[in-house]
Amino acid sequence: MQKLTYRDSIGQLDRLLKRNEADQQSTRDGVLAIIDRVKAEGDAALRALTAQFDGCTVTNLKVSAEEIDEAFAAADPKLVTAIEKAADNIRAFHKKQLETTWTYEPAPGITLGQHITPIERVGVYVPGGKAAYPSTVLMDTIPAVVAGVSAIAMVTPPGEDGKINPNILCAAKIAGVSEIYKVGGAQAIAALAYGTETIAPVHKIVGPGNIFVATAKKEVFGKVAIDMIAGPSEVLVLCDGSADPEWIAADLLSQAEHDEMAMPILVTTDDAFADAVIDEVYRQIKADLRRKAIAKSAVDHFGFVFVCDDLDEAFELAGRVAPEHMELALPDAKAYLDRVQNAGAIFLGSYSPEPLGDYFAGPNHTLPTSGTAKFSSPLGTYDFIKRSSIIEYGEANLRAVADDIVTFAEAEGLDAHAKSIERRFRKKV
Amino acid sequence: MQKLTYRDSIGQLDRLLKRNEADQQSTRDGVLAIIDRVKAEGDAALRALTAQFDGCTVTNLKVSAEEIDEAFAAADPKLVTAIEKAADNIRAFHKKQLETTWTYEPAPGITLGQHITPIERVGVYVPGGKAAYPSTVLMDTIPAVVAGVSAIAMVTPPGEDGKINPNILCAAKIAGVSEIYKVGGAQAIAALAYGTETIAPVHKIVGPGNIFVATAKKEVFGKVAIDMIAGPSEVLVLCDGSADPEWIAADLLSQAEHDEMAMPILVTTDDAFADAVIDEVYRQIKADLRRKAIAKSAVDHFGFVFVCDDLDEAFELAGRVAPEHMELALPDAKAYLDRVQNAGAIFLGSYSPEPLGDYFAGPNHTLPTSGTAKFSSPLGTYDFIKRSSIIEYGEANLRAVADDIVTFAEAEGLDAHAKSIERRFRKKV
Repeated sequence: MQKLTYRDSIGQLDRLLKRNEADQQSTRDGVLAIIDRVKAEGDAALRALTAQFDGCTVTNLKVSAEEIDEAFAAADPKLVTAIEKAADNIRAFHKKQLETTWTYEPAPGITLGQHITPIERVGVYVPGGKAAYPSTVLMDTIPAVVAGVSAIAMVTPPGEDGKINPNILCAAKIAGVSEIYKVGGAQAIAALAYGTETIAPVHKIVGPGNIFVATAKKEVFGKVAIDMIAGPSEVLVLCDGSADPEWIAADLLSQAEHDEMAMPILVTTDDAFADAVIDEVYRQIKADLRRKAIAKSAVDHFGFVFVCDDLDEAFELAGRVAPEHMELALPDAKAYLDRVQNAGAIFLGSYSPEPLGDYFAGPNHTLPTSGTAKFSSPLGTYDFIKRSSIIEYGEANLRAVADDIVTFAEAEGLDAHAKSIERRFRKKV
Repeated sequence: MQKLTYRDSIGQLDRLLKRNEADQQSTRDGVLAIIDRVKAEGDAALRALTAQFDGCTVTNLKVSAEEIDEAFAAADPKLVTAIEKAADNIRAFHKKQLETTWTYEPAPGITLGQHITPIERVGVYVPGGKAAYPSTVLMDTIPAVVAGVSAIAMVTPPGEDGKINPNILCAAKIAGVSEIYKVGGAQAIAALAYGTETIAPVHKIVGPGNIFVATAKKEVFGKVAIDMIAGPSEVLVLCDGSADPEWIAADLLSQAEHDEMAMPILVTTDDAFADAVIDEVYRQIKADLRRKAIAKSAVDHFGFVFVCDDLDEAFELAGRVAPEHMELALPDAKAYLDRVQNAGAIFLGSYSPEPLGDYFAGPNHTLPTSGTAKFSSPLGTYDFIKRSSIIEYGEANLRAVADDIVTFAEAEGLDAHAKSIERRFRKKV
């Protein structure tokens, strides 16, 4: 972990936080070829590409009801219970988020408002292999279910045995999703965007994926909507010297174990505390971690400790990092909420560590990464609805503003706009 | 205008509504070259490209306070008044849209919620030339101002005289924007995304533009957020036989005059009414329209009249079109609101023609086009804020769910996540 003072870090923060970008052009060429092939050949392309990339033969792209039943038989009942409890919490939180249609009357005869409707058909990408996380299934599908999306198509790559991880299938069923396809990568995104014989096209695609999935999502953007492009993730823990270094180190490592590009950051006002956390991080890595090598690599290359003179500096720096996860491990943490400028999720106090949000509390764990919290939000029900403006004027109301509208239209050189108003008041032209 | 029955149209609707796509690859190559040049050369590239594309020399990229004063001196006072009235309406509507931070306590000791903060710095693209519309300035900047964005950078291409249309400058000032740069095209988008000596980079870019602007926005997406990619636009007027064919024809033409690819669509349950509207459209084109050639081309190539057996068919077809603007020219139009599945803006009744919304009523006129209302919304204050989840658990609350979280983490192979919980309860590992 690299330790810097606020003063030393602030001028070079962008450079410090920069992580490698993949070779985008060659990735893009490959992805475009895959998309074109899926558009041209449909299901046959999906089967061929699945054989090529996932090493398995898939006869039925769609997961059957029997396969879902088998998954429940195979799954750990304790995990199924945990998934059910988490799903309840996620559902409850996202119901709070739901927007509804509203109208108001700014003057007698005038109604304005916003009509809310769910997107009709949505696709959800769920990574496979070692990153096949049931929590991701819950987080990415439940907001769509709560928003009232009537058709949710989930895609996820099969293992070499041609099967989907049973925990994934259980989570999908618990979330309320039963349309699941065994296909991953750019080919899955192409299928969702353009449709094949088996997979009907969707209007929006969400969910994290590798560089091929992310590139394909960016390519089909416009044809369909997409959520954010997920990058390497980060946690920023902000504390004075009062927290327990052992706990904070454990929280930093829970982020570091995700992948070698994950970024664990400590921002503190106490230099001795900073050293204690660094010692603890390396002690815990040595002690016992299944994903020790990944965590150590992330800590070594992308771990930072920023020592600030005071909390003003600390919050300013934290805002510039705009972390995916921000833990405020401070006494009376809630009092500092208004000082948070950019963050995906904010964890308040010492008993709200990041994994609580990853799995269980209810708010979404699909969050803006790599500083994109400066301009984007957690996945939410707002990602699965659309708004339509409502405008209603009566005759007298339109007459009262007709001259202003005509003035505007004439100034913009759009006289057919003007005439649409004028003809209503019988100034025949 | 092509007239079809519901039955004849529904199977080929996608084909009918398809408009030409530009040659995307060659456009993209040119845009990438421009972006790279702006990244490398900064302001010098902006000046050179402005000379090349806009045919003028720009010394000061930033519009001065004097230039804004001169614009007010040059503008039609009647127009300035209309702009001010429209700005008031737009401000009032968007204030209704504003979301605020909320929290709730699902159980004692637990607080969950959503923290709302404005995006700090936003860029707004405003087209120049004949499409330099003061209404666009109001619609694209006021939601940002209302949302609390502290810095709004507007970019717009200068004319051959090196100046910005005074109406544009007046609208910007009235909207509350004073940071304005004389640069357009892909180079303006590159400057906003990456920054130059004069233009500080922004976090999000909104606003309509030509194919080069749209392509550049798509390229910088990810580095910054963008709003929708605007395409050719459309109006769909849905009526029984009770409306006045003259008015409906005028509304169709107000859309058609925008550009040759604009799409004016009538959906009606009355065949004789359909014929009357078609006759009126051609009569009004002949009578007197400044942009006659454009309007006629749009009507001839992309004008459709769909005759349906009943309103069920009409609303189903309208939902499939997902028009930018939908006029419900029906008696008691409000009663049909729940039957609208996809639309950018909904205009209710015979005295709410599209130009009322384009200029004046208050809801935004930057709307999803080309069927993207199936998955996106009007520009709104929600485009200029971001949400951060709030999670706070007390000790007892975390203890109560510790086992479930550990079960989850273990199932996903992430034991550092499990340990972050366990260490808090002194199960030392």
